[in-house]
Amino acid sequence: MSGSIYGSIFRISTFGESHGAAIGGVVDGFPPNIEIDLAFIQSELDRRKPGQSKIVTQRKEDDEVRFLSGIFEGKSTGTPIAFYIENTNAKSSDYEHLKENFRPSHADFTYQEKYGHRDYRGGGRSSARETATRVVAGALAKLYLKQAGIKITAFVDQVGTVKVPGNVQPDFSVIEENPVRCAHAETAIVMEQLISATRKKGDTVGGSVFCIATGLPAGLGEPVFDKLHAELGKAMLSINAVKGFEYGSGFKGIEMYGSEHNDLFESDGTTKTNHSGGIQGGISNGMPVYFRTAFKPVATIMQKQESINQAGEKIELEGKGRHDPCVVPRAVPIVEAMTAIVLLDFYLRWKAYQ
Amino acid sequence: MSGSIYGSIFRISTFGESHGAAIGGVVDGFPPNIEIDLAFIQSELDRRKPGQSKIVTQRKEDDEVRFLSGIFEGKSTGTPIAFYIENTNAKSSDYEHLKENFRPSHADFTYQEKYGHRDYRGGGRSSARETATRVVAGALAKLYLKQAGIKITAFVDQVGTVKVPGNVQPDFSVIEENPVRCAHAETAIVMEQLISATRKKGDTVGGSVFCIATGLPAGLGEPVFDKLHAELGKAMLSINAVKGFEYGSGFKGIEMYGSEHNDLFESDGTTKTNHSGGIQGGISNGMPVYFRTAFKPVATIMQKQESINQAGEKIELEGKGRHDPCVVPRAVPIVEAMTAIVLLDFYLRWKAYQ
Amino acid sequence: MSGSIYGSIFRISTFGESHGAAIGGVVDGFPPNIEIDLAFIQSELDRRKPGQSKIVTQRKEDDEVRFLSGIFEGKSTGTPIAFYIENTNAKSSDYEHLKENFRPSHADFTYQEKYGHRDYRGGGRSSARETATRVVAGALAKLYLKQAGIKITAFVDQVGTVKVPGNVQPDFSVIEENPVRCAHAETAIVMEQLISATRKKGDTVGGSVFCIATGLPAGLGEPVFDKLHAELGKAMLSINAVKGFEYGSGFKGIEMYGSEHNDLFESDGTTKTNHSGGIQGGISNGMPVYFRTAFKPVATIMQKQESINQAGEKIELEGKGRHDPCVVPRAVPIVEAMTAIVLLDFYLRWKAYQ
Amino acid sequence: MSGSIYGSIFRISTFGESHGAAIGGVVDGFPPNIEIDLAFIQSELDRRKPGQSKIVTQRKEDDEVRFLSGIFEGKSTGTPIAFYIENTNAKSSDYEHLKENFRPSHADFTYQEKYGHRDYRGGGRSSARETATRVVAGALAKLYLKQAGIKITAFVDQVGTVKVPGNVQPDFSVIEENPVRCAHAETAIVMEQLISATRKKGDTVGGSVFCIATGLPAGLGEPVFDKLHAELGKAMLSINAVKGFEYGSGFKGIEMYGSEHNDLFESDGTTKTNHSGGIQGGISNGMPVYFRTAFKPVATIMQKQESINQAGEKIELEGKGRHDPCVVPRAVPIVEAMTAIVLLDFYLRWKAYQ
Repeated sequence: MSGSIYGSIFRISTFGESHGAAIGGVVDGFPPNIEIDLAFIQSELDRRKPGQSKIVTQRKEDDEVRFLSGIFEGKSTGTPIAFYIENTNAKSSDYEHLKENFRPSHADFTYQEKYGHRDYRGGGRSSARETATRVVAGALAKLYLKQAGIKITAFVDQVGTVKVPGNVQPDFSVIEENPVRCAHAETAIVMEQLISATRKKGDTVGGSVFCIATGLPAGLGEPVFDKLHAELGKAMLSINAVKGFEYGSGFKGIEMYGSEHNDLFESDGTTKTNHSGGIQGGISNGMPVYFRTAFKPVATIMQKQESINQAGEKIELEGKGRHDPCVVPRAVPIVEAMTAIVLLDFYLRWKAYQ
Repeated sequence: MSGSIYGSIFRISTFGESHGAAIGGVVDGFPPNIEIDLAFIQSELDRRKPGQSKIVTQRKEDDEVRFLSGIFEGKSTGTPIAFYIENTNAKSSDYEHLKENFRPSHADFTYQEKYGHRDYRGGGRSSARETATRVVAGALAKLYLKQAGIKITAFVDQVGTVKVPGNVQPDFSVIEENPVRCAHAETAIVMEQLISATRKKGDTVGGSVFCIATGLPAGLGEPVFDKLHAELGKAMLSINAVKGFEYGSGFKGIEMYGSEHNDLFESDGTTKTNHSGGIQGGISNGMPVYFRTAFKPVATIMQKQESINQAGEKIELEGKGRHDPCVVPRAVPIVEAMTAIVLLDFYLRWKAYQ
Repeated sequence: MSGSIYGSIFRISTFGESHGAAIGGVVDGFPPNIEIDLAFIQSELDRRKPGQSKIVTQRKEDDEVRFLSGIFEGKSTGTPIAFYIENTNAKSSDYEHLKENFRPSHADFTYQEKYGHRDYRGGGRSSARETATRVVAGALAKLYLKQAGIKITAFVDQVGTVKVPGNVQPDFSVIEENPVRCAHAETAIVMEQLISATRKKGDTVGGSVFCIATGLPAGLGEPVFDKLHAELGKAMLSINAVKGFEYGSGFKGIEMYGSEHNDLFESDGTTKTNHSGGIQGGISNGMPVYFRTAFKPVATIMQKQESINQAGEKIELEGKGRHDPCVVPRAVPIVEAMTAIVLLDFYLRWKAYQ
Repeated sequence: MSGSIYGSIFRISTFGESHGAAIGGVVDGFPPNIEIDLAFIQSELDRRKPGQSKIVTQRKEDDEVRFLSGIFEGKSTGTPIAFYIENTNAKSSDYEHLKENFRPSHADFTYQEKYGHRDYRGGGRSSARETATRVVAGALAKLYLKQAGIKITAFVDQVGTVKVPGNVQPDFSVIEENPVRCAHAETAIVMEQLISATRKKGDTVGGSVFCIATGLPAGLGEPVFDKLHAELGKAMLSINAVKGFEYGSGFKGIEMYGSEHNDLFESDGTTKTNHSGGIQGGISNGMPVYFRTAFKPVATIMQKQESINQAGEKIELEGKGRHDPCVVPRAVPIVEAMTAIVLLDFYLRWKAYQ
C-alpha cells in the first residue's frame, strides 16, 4: 500500500534508491510463453540512460539489467519476473552536502517529514533513476502488446515555448534520429538549441511528451473509476516532474462547442474526427488513443539558490553532479513504458470477459 | 476489478444506471464515531442536482438519499455505509429512439462493443447521473476531513474562452452566489451569458474547474506510483466529460525555467511560491494543494447530427430530453467530492504509520 | 480495506446490520449477457432463511431480495449488480438488554473495543444475518459457473459427535430432503434427534459441512499466495462460527505416509486417488475439489450465563429471541455460495490468460 | 494478480524458482525508522535452511540474503525493501529426468496445464524453496512487532500419529533444543525416531505445527471477509504441503456444546477459557491467538512410483536428490513468518483508525 506496487492483473512492484545497492522490480502477472527479447529490453533502457547525447546529463550509467526469475529457456513462465540494475556509477560524495539540507522543489523536505529518516543521496527513492525499472517492465509489456497488434509511440512535442507546429504531421521515423526525440526534424533543431542555451546558463526548462497508441481493440477500460484515460493519467502523473495530463482534445476542449467537438461516426464504427482521443466513457473505441504529458523544468539548477536545512536555518545551495537541463528527451521511453504497462493490464482485464 | 470500486483504505463501491431502479454506493472503511450530518450530505447533493438554475438542465430529480447501514444513533459505526437514490424522474421514453442507435461522442458504441448488452436508456451506467453517488461518498469524507482541519473548495475558472483573469484573487464567498459557481462575480456574469447563448443555439460548451485543498499535513501521498497528485488526477479524470488535469504550474510549467519554477523555502518550511501545487515527490508539503480539471462540451446537443445504428446504417439524431449546455457549474461539487475521497484515503494511509 | 469487500476480478461489497434498515451488497465484475434467474436466486436465499424446519430458528424473515442495477431485460449488463434485503422482522426490543452488556463468545466486546460505537441490536454487523448477502452473490456466481460446467454441492457431514460413516457414499439426492441437509438419510435422522435434544436443553452444538466442486478445468488457482485452497480457506473461515478448514486429506494427512498419500496418475491425467483434493501446488488439476469446514456451537444459549457489562461489572445473561440450536443446516447454502464466489473469481483470473 | 503479492498495507511481492538465478522479494509498506537487525534475519533463515540436522534434507544451501534497498544507515526508510538469495547449490542435473515427466502429488502437471511452459527443475516456482523469502519478510515484520509487544511462537505438536499429550503444557525453551522443534522434550525424541525410521524406508510422513501469538491489542481484524483468523488461515494454507487450518477449539469445536464452548468473561475483559482462540467476530480480543496447521507427507519419496509423462505414457519414477522425510521441523519458522506478516498488516490497518 505504500505505493510502489502498480496495476491490477499485470502488476509491477519496484524498489531502489539512486545511490543504494540497486534498483529493480518484480513483474507479476506477465503471460507465459512469451519470447523474452533481452536485446530489445536493453535497447529500451539505453533510450532512457544518461549520456546519450550532449543535451542530456553526462553521467555514465550502464544500466545493465539482470533477470532473476520467471524466464526459462528464453520464454516467460507466467511466474514473477524479477530484475535489478546495480547502481555502479553512483557518486554519493556529490550529495554529502545534502545530508541536512533541503533542495528547493525536490522531495528532500517531504520525505523527511513523511518518514523521519531518508536516504538523502541523490534523492534516494524520489530520484528519477527509479524510472529505469519502469522502462524494463514496460519493455516486457511491449513484447506482449506487439503480438496483440498494439503499437505505442511517444515523442517530444514541446520544449519551453518551442512547439511542433499544429499543422505538422508527426514523422515517427525521425524521433530516434534527433537527440530531443521530436517527431519533426526542423523543430527538433530549435528545441536542441534551446536546451543547449539553457544548460549554458546553468538553468533547466520544461517540456511535454505526446504519446499515441494504435491497434487497441474496442472495449479496453472499465467504468466508472478505472476509465482507460484515468489510469493512463495516473500512470503519467506518477512519473517524476510531471505536472499535467490531457488526452484527446484535452484543455483545448474547454474552448470548443459540442457541435464541433463531437466525433461523428463512419459506417464502420470509426469516427471522422478523434477529439475523444480514442476513448468514450472510459472505454477504447478502436481509434488511436493519444495524450500529452507536461513536465516541469528539472529542479536541480547550476545556479546558487537560497534554501533551508533541517534546523530551519537559511543556507545557500548550488547544484553539483551531472543533471539534465531538460527531462523530456529521456522521458519519451518512460512515457511509452508506463503506457505499455497500463495497456497490458487493461488488455488482460478485457480478456477475462472474452 | 470492473472499475466501480475506488480507493485503498477508504473505499467506495458504486452502482446504478440512470434509468434503472436506483443509483447508490457502499462506503467501506469510514472511521467510526463520526457524527453524520444528513442535512449537510443532502445539501451537497442539492448542489449537484439538475434544475437549480436557468443555465443547467431543467430535469427535476429530487435525488433524495436513503442510508441503509453503518450509521447508528447518528454516528458512524465503522462498518460499511450503504445508500441509494431512487431514479424517480427517469423518462425512459426519451431514450427509446436510442435502442439501436449510437450517439456521437457518447459511450453507447463502446458499451455495446465491450458488453454486447447495455441499458441504452439515458446512457445507463455511463450517464453523469452516476456522479451523484460520488457526491454522497465525498460528503461523508468531508465530514471527517473537517475534523482534521482540511478544507476543499472548487469553483469554475473557465467556460469556453471566458476565463477568470489571472490577476484576480478568487473570492470564495461568491461561488455559491452565482449560478456558474465562479469565484469572480464579474466573470460569472459573462460566463452565464455565454452558457445561455450557447443553449439557445442548441449547442454546448466546455469549461474547467479549479480546486484547492488547505490544511493538509505534510506527508500525504505515497511514492512512487501512488503520488498524491497522480491519484487526484485519476480521480478527476474518472469524472464524466473530463479531458485533462494539471496541478501546480501544470501545463504552464512547460514554458518555465527551473530558476523561476523552483519554490524557495521560508525558515518554517513553507515556500515563497507554490508552483509545486503543495506536492513534492508525490507527497504533500503542507502548502495548499491545487489543481485544475478540463471538461469537454456535453455531447448531447439540440441540433441534428448524423450518426450510425448498430447495423452500421447512417441515421440522423437530435438530442431529446433536458440536458446541460455546460457541465461545469454542476461539476464543482463532484470535483470537491472526488478530492475529499482521495484525501481521506491518503489521510488514513498516512495515519497507519503515525 | 475495512474488510467488507472480497474478491479480485469478481468482487462483492456487502453491507448491513441485522437490525438496521437493510442488508445487501454490490457485485462488481459479473460477466455481461448472463440470464439472471431471479427465482433461482430467491430459492437459494430460501435455503438459508430461518424458520424452514423445526430444528432451526423459528424467526420469520422473508428475506426478499430487491435488485437495483446491473440487470437489463433479464440479463446482466456487466456493470455492478446491487441488491438489498429489508430487515422486516427485526425485533430490536429483544436486544435492548444488550446495550451495555457483552455476551460470552459473541463479538459485542471486540466491536466495542475496535470501534467504540456499535449497533448492539442482534449483533449488528457481526450477526450471521450478514451471510444472506453472500448467498445472493453466490447465486449469481452459480448462474455463470453452471454455464461453464462447474457444479458445487455441500452437505452436513457431522453434528456434534454424529458423523456420516466413512464407508458411506454421499447421496446428494437426499440433502434437501432432510432438515439437517445431510447426504446420508439414516445419519440425518440421528443428527436431527441430537439437535432437537440439544435445543430442549437450551443448548447448542457444533457441526461441519462438506463441500465438493466438480467440472473445474485444470489451471485454476495462482501461485504462491493465492492458491486455490488458500482462498477457499479464507472464504470459509470468513463465515460466522467457523473454526477450521481442511481440504483433500486434511488433518488426516498428518498421519499418512507419502507412499500412501501420493495420488498416482492415470494416462489421461486424472489420478487414482484424490488425497490432494483436486489441487496441486495451489492449482486445480481437473479432479473434484473438496473440503470440510468446522462450525462451533452457536454462542447464544437459552441458559443463564455470567458475563460482564461495559463497566466491567458482573452480570447474568440468558439468551432471548429465536436462535439456531445448530448452525450447519442453514450453513450449507452459505458454504456453497462462498465457494461459488471464489471459483468464479479464479475462473475469470484464469480466462485473462487463455 | 498472479498471486505472488500478498497483504494490504504491509505487502510482500516474492519471486524465484528453486533452480533459477535467485529467489527473493520486495517488502512494501514496512514502517520507517526501524532498526534492521541483519543477524536476526539471517538467524531466522538459518532455522529454515536445509542440513541443520540429521532428520532434514542434507542439501547444503547457505541461503545468504542480500538486501538491495529500503535500508539506510541500519534503519528502514519506509521505502520498499528488496532482497534476494542466490541459488548457489542448485543441482539441476538431479531434475533432468523430470523435463517431460509428472511426479505424483507435485505441481508439475498443474503448472504444465496452467502455463504450457514451466521451469521443471526442482519444482521451479512450486518448490518449497520459495518459502525462504517469506522467512525474510516475516523476520522484518517480527522486528516491528517486537517493539509493539507482540510475540509469535510456533512448534511441532504432531508427527504422524505421535502427538504432544493433551495434558502437557508446552515448554517453549526446548523448541530450538531438539531437531524436531517440538515444545515437549520427551515427545520430541519419539518424533525424531519416527522421522528417522520413515527416512530409512525412503518414505515421508506428515505433521502439524501449533502457533501462538501473544501481546496483541484488542481490535485487530476486520469484519466481515478479512477476519483475523480468515487471513491467518489463508496465509497458512498458502504454505507448501499444508492441508488444513484450525484456530481456537478448531475441529474439536464441532463436538462441543455451546454451554461448554462459550468463553466467560473476567471483570477485566479477559476470558476464563479461550476456545475462541483470542478472536471474536474476526477481531482479536486481547487473549492469546492460537492455531494449528496440518502438513501432508512430502510428495518426493525414495521409492519407485508409477507415473506419466507429458505424452500420457506410463513411466516409473524414483526420488533423486536430497529431500525432507518430514517437513514440519523446517516449517516452524515459516509458520511464524507468515503469522508475523499477517499480524503486521492488520496492526497497520488498525493504526489507520487510532
